[in-house]
Amino acid sequence: MAETAPLSRFEVTFDVEGRNDAKFRNDITVHLRGPHPASVELPTDEGPYHDGDGTAPYPLAYFASGLTACIMTQLRAFARRLEIPLTTIAVKARLHWQAQQRGREPYESSPVAFTIDLDLGGGASTEDKKRLIEAAAKGCFVEQSLKPGIVKHRLKVGDDWVAI
Amino acid sequence: MAETAPLSRFEVTFDVEGRNDAKFRNDITVHLRGPHPASVELPTDEGPYHDGDGTAPYPLAYFASGLTACIMTQLRAFARRLEIPLTTIAVKARLHWQAQQRGREPYESSPVAFTIDLDLGGGASTEDKKRLIEAAAKGCFVEQSLKPGIVKHRLKVGDDWVAI
Repeated sequence: MAETAPLSRFEVTFDVEGRNDAKFRNDITVHLRGPHPASVELPTDEGPYHDGDGTAPYPLAYFASGLTACIMTQLRAFARRLEIPLTTIAVKARLHWQAQQRGREPYESSPVAFTIDLDLGGGASTEDKKRLIEAAAKGCFVEQSLKPGIVKHRLKVGDDWVAI
Repeated sequence: MAETAPLSRFEVTFDVEGRNDAKFRNDITVHLRGPHPASVELPTDEGPYHDGDGTAPYPLAYFASGLTACIMTQLRAFARRLEIPLTTIAVKARLHWQAQQRGREPYESSPVAFTIDLDLGGGASTEDKKRLIEAAAKGCFVEQSLKPGIVKHRLKVGDDWVAI
C-alpha cells in the first residue's frame, strides 16, 4: 500500500542593496541566501521618458523577464516531476499597465493584464499540458506574488490559443 | 484663481519573447513599446537547486532588482515633481517566499514579505520623506501589481527605522 509522502516546506530569500546618487541610474546587487548563495549585479536606468541616460535595462524590463522566465523554469522543473514529455518552450508575453496623473503631479499606476502565451513541444496531450501549466503557475514565485487575476495563460493547441 | 490641471492617462507596454530548448536556460528578449521603444536581452538560468548550469541570473534575481529599482526610480522622479530635496537613495530590501511540497510533487509557493528599507539623503523633513515614499509606492508599476500588504516600507530617521 502506497504511503503518502510527508509535507515539507522550504524558504527562498533574496537580499538586495540599491544605491542612487543622482539621476536615474540605480546600482543594484542581488544576493540569493540559503544553501546555494549567489550574488549578481543588476543595475537599472531610465531612458528618454524620465530623461535618464540609458546605461542599463529598465526596472520593468527585469520584472518582465523575471515574470516570463519564472513560469518557464517551473514548466521545465515540473515536467520532470509529473513525467509529462516536454521538449521546447516558446513563450510570448505582454505586460500592460496604465497610469494616470493630474498635470505634473506624481502619477498613480495600475496593471491592466499580463498575458502569457505558451507553445509547448514534446507531444503531451492537451490535458497534460494544461495540468503542467496549472502546476507551474502555482509554483511560480512571481505569479503567486501578484494580484489575483492579472496573469492570463493561453496554450497553443493546433493553430488556436486556448485560455487556461 | 488657480485652475485644476486636467487628468491624463498613459499606457506602458512590454512584450517578451522566451525560448527554452532544454534544461533551465531561458533566452529572453524584452521589448518596451510606445514612443521610445527599446529592446534588451535578459536570459535566465538556474543554479544547483534545480541542477541548472548557472549561465545567467536567476529569474527571481531580475524580479528582486526590478522591485527595488522601481521605487528608487519613482522616488527620484517624484522628488522633482513634489519639490522635495533628495540627494542619495540607499536601499536594503529583503524578499522572502515559502514553498511547500509533498514528496517530489510540484511545490506551491507563496510570498511571506518584501521589506524595503529606505535611507534618503538631502535634508528633507521626515514628513516630506514619508509623503515622497507614499507617492513613489503608488506610482511604482511593480508594487501596484503585487498582492496588497506584501510590501513593507521603512524610512531611516536618525538611528531608527520607522514603518511607513
